Amino acid sequence: MQIKNRLLNFKDKIIYQNDEWFKFSIDAVLLANFVTIRLKDKVIFDLATGNAPIAMLLTYRTNAKIIGVELQKEIYDLAVKSVKENNFDNQIELLNMDIVNIKGNLRAESADVIVCNPPFFKTKEMKIMNNVDIKTIARHEVKINLDKLIENASYLLKNKAIFAMVHKPDRLCEIISIMKKYKIEPKKIQFVYSNKNNNSNILLIEGIKNGNPSVKVLPPLYIYNDDGSYTTIVSKMFEE
Amino acid sequence: MQIKNRLLNFKDKIIYQNDEWFKFSIDAVLLANFVTIRLKDKVIFDLATGNAPIAMLLTYRTNAKIIGVELQKEIYDLAVKSVKENNFDNQIELLNMDIVNIKGNLRAESADVIVCNPPFFKTKEMKIMNNVDIKTIARHEVKINLDKLIENASYLLKNKAIFAMVHKPDRLCEIISIMKKYKIEPKKIQFVYSNKNNNSNILLIEGIKNGNPSVKVLPPLYIYNDDGSYTTIVSKMFEE
Repeated sequence: MQIKNRLLNFKDKIIYQNDEWFKFSIDAVLLANFVTIRLKDKVIFDLATGNAPIAMLLTYRTNAKIIGVELQKEIYDLAVKSVKENNFDNQIELLNMDIVNIKGNLRAESADVIVCNPPFFKTKEMKIMNNVDIKTIARHEVKINLDKLIENASYLLKNKAIFAMVHKPDRLCEIISIMKKYKIEPKKIQFVYSNKNNNSNILLIEGIKNGNPSVKVLPPLYIYNDDGSYTTIVSKMFEE
Repeated sequence: MQIKNRLLNFKDKIIYQNDEWFKFSIDAVLLANFVTIRLKDKVIFDLATGNAPIAMLLTYRTNAKIIGVELQKEIYDLAVKSVKENNFDNQIELLNMDIVNIKGNLRAESADVIVCNPPFFKTKEMKIMNNVDIKTIARHEVKINLDKLIENASYLLKNKAIFAMVHKPDRLCEIISIMKKYKIEPKKIQFVYSNKNNNSNILLIEGIKNGNPSVKVLPPLYIYNDDGSYTTIVSKMFEE
């Protein structure tokens, strides 16, 4: 596989990415806008940070310390490069580690907020195990599944801390079950739609560790206008 | 309490109702339009049928037998009167019984479809027990809670049969958990919004007994236009 490290300009920052692995996507932008960050929050974890788009976007919203965790060395290296070049070294710390190893290695109840844009797709293990490349790991649950991810996230969360994730709506019920299993009560959900006529294709969900059971379903968010252009709300997310 | 039996004209039918107990509402119309009914479906149950609006609306969509179950004798009597006056006797059967007694009294796995517009509000039992009237029972979980309701519904459902319910979005996570507990897998969800700027205030959810875990989130449904008039889609539901 040929490696092309592309430069992407966004909000006047430089993000290094490799289009053959995965693209910095709308999912990251939506999650960085969706997550609740309170003034008192001091430590934010970005699990499965990839080339760190969410971590970098969050610097526009908070002065909290942001810790990005990425398993894959090749992608982690791109994140380090982007963070350094944009002078985010003081605010963003990057860890090249496996999320399943958080429990036991990082300090319990140290996070005020966790954001996560994890691999979306279930893996038929037998089919995939002979052909595991960087892109597959970024997109499929080869190395981590939802249960392990949320178990480790819950371990990191302080009492009443926030967990926010972007995922696929078809897995909503499974996601809710697992969040509840690990004491993260869903409190805020937003469904994202490409346009007015399609089913939702992106789920934004936020929960609170040991929160009360009662969830708000926000107004829907549309990505495109009828003419194919970005809606105003999405355009604004891409502007400075 | 003074009893006023009001006549309501809807789709050219007469629905008897008592506004002091509860009003025939948009919830019933939405659910009657939302539920999936297949050609092969022969028996539909409408649990907590009230004055039977959903049962009567479904006659426009299917020739299946529709069985309405209502606990409260006074409301059941109104339903009987409406069904008779509109000549639905052949298609709609009404049972004056408590949903919690379905298990053991009605035949297991006899329903192809169940629809339900249950009491929405949780009850602080101590507060309410001294003051239980007809309206309270229709709106609050005095006589039945979600767990008991869905347990009895699941008992009635054939394998792969459909369960569709209208409820409040803030209880989404609880509803999903209980449906899954009783082997009804959520398959289709639609969030209803008063208008474009508010959080969802009505949840439509449908599951399949022993279905595969994967849910579709339909495009949002808006009740009102910006000028306060009904949207086209809702207007159409009220027309013949």
